[in-house]
Amino acid sequence: MGPISSELQRVIDLLAKLPGLGPRSARRVALHLIKRKDTALTSLAAALEDAAAAIVTCETCGNLDTQDPCRICTDTRRDASTLCVVEEVGDLWALERAAVFKGSYHILGGTLSALEGVGPQNLNIGPLVARASAPVVTEVILALDATVDGQATAHLIMDRLDGADVKITHLAHGVPVGGELDYLDEGTLAAALNARHTY
Amino acid sequence: MGPISSELQRVIDLLAKLPGLGPRSARRVALHLIKRKDTALTSLAAALEDAAAAIVTCETCGNLDTQDPCRICTDTRRDASTLCVVEEVGDLWALERAAVFKGSYHILGGTLSALEGVGPQNLNIGPLVARASAPVVTEVILALDATVDGQATAHLIMDRLDGADVKITHLAHGVPVGGELDYLDEGTLAAALNARHTY
Repeated sequence: MGPISSELQRVIDLLAKLPGLGPRSARRVALHLIKRKDTALTSLAAALEDAAAAIVTCETCGNLDTQDPCRICTDTRRDASTLCVVEEVGDLWALERAAVFKGSYHILGGTLSALEGVGPQNLNIGPLVARASAPVVTEVILALDATVDGQATAHLIMDRLDGADVKITHLAHGVPVGGELDYLDEGTLAAALNARHTY
Repeated sequence: MGPISSELQRVIDLLAKLPGLGPRSARRVALHLIKRKDTALTSLAAALEDAAAAIVTCETCGNLDTQDPCRICTDTRRDASTLCVVEEVGDLWALERAAVFKGSYHILGGTLSALEGVGPQNLNIGPLVARASAPVVTEVILALDATVDGQATAHLIMDRLDGADVKITHLAHGVPVGGELDYLDEGTLAAALNARHTY
C-alpha cells in the first residue's frame, strides 16, 4: 500500500484523465487542492456541481448554455441568414472572442477521424442540412480545422448540402496576425501570397 | 456578455488557478468536463468532496492522510531513528515510490524563498528540532531541492539542529539514472566524478 490514501488517489486518477494532464501534473493539482481544501477545493467542487446542474446543450445548434435554445440562437440581433459550422463549443468561444461574426452557429461535435473511429453518423450533420435548407439561410461558413480530417469533414458537408440553396464558404488561409514568415509552412505562405491584397 | 455562461466561467476561473493550467487549458478542461457532466464531472466533484472530508494533516510529520498520526508515523515497522526532511508531501510520495527509505518523514511545508517571502517562521522547523532532539533519533536526512533556496534551507536547519545529537546528511549528487552526460550541467558532472565508485 502506497502513502497516498484511496480518497486522494481517486482524485488523482480522475484528474489524470483530463486533457493536458498526466499522472505527474494530476498529483501536483491534487496536492494543491487538498492543501487548500477549505478554499480552492470546496469552491471547485461546488462550481462543478452548479455548472452540471445549470448547463444544457442547445437542441438547435449544439452550444452549451443555461438555456435551450441558447442565448446565441435566441438573440434576434444576430443574423439568421448565415450559419457558421464549427467542430466544438470551444471553437464557437474562440470565434466569439474575435467578435466579428454576428450570425448563427452549428456545432458538429467533432470531425471525421479514421484514427478515432469518427464517421459521418457520429457528427451532427442531419440537423445542419435541415437548418441550411430553411429559406432564410443563404450562406454556410465551414469554420473547420485546416487539417486533413477537418477538410475531409468540409467535403462531406459540401456533399450533403448539395440540395440546399446556400453559398458555402471557408475561412481564409494566410499569415497569422503576429506570425513570423520564417516559421510558417510553405502551404500557408503560398495561400497567403495567392490571396494577397493591395494596400 | 460573452457566450460562456457565468456558471461555466466560474469553473474555468477556478481551474485556471491550478498549477500548470492557464486560461486556455482551463477552458479545454472545463469543456471536457461539462460535455461529460453525468460521468467525469460528477465523479470528480464527488471525489473532491470525499477527499476534503477524509483527509487530514498529520500533526507529527505534516503528511496528508485519512488518519492523524498518519500511517507512516504509526507504522511500527519503520525506523524511528532516521528522520527524512522534505519540502512538500509530493516529495514524500516521490521518495516512497523509490521504496528505499524506511524511516520517518518531516515535511517543512516549503523552502526559504526571498522572492515568495517565505522566511524561517513560515516553515515547520520548531517541531523538527523537537523531534530530532528525541534520544531515539540518530540521523536527519535533508532531502531538499538542489537549488539555492533548497540549500539555504538546509543550512538554516543545520544551524537549528546544532544542539541536537544527530548526524545530518544530504542526498548524493550525481548522474540521474538514464541520464545522458552530454545534457548534464558541469556542477552535476563534477560532483559525480568526485563521488565516483569502483566497480
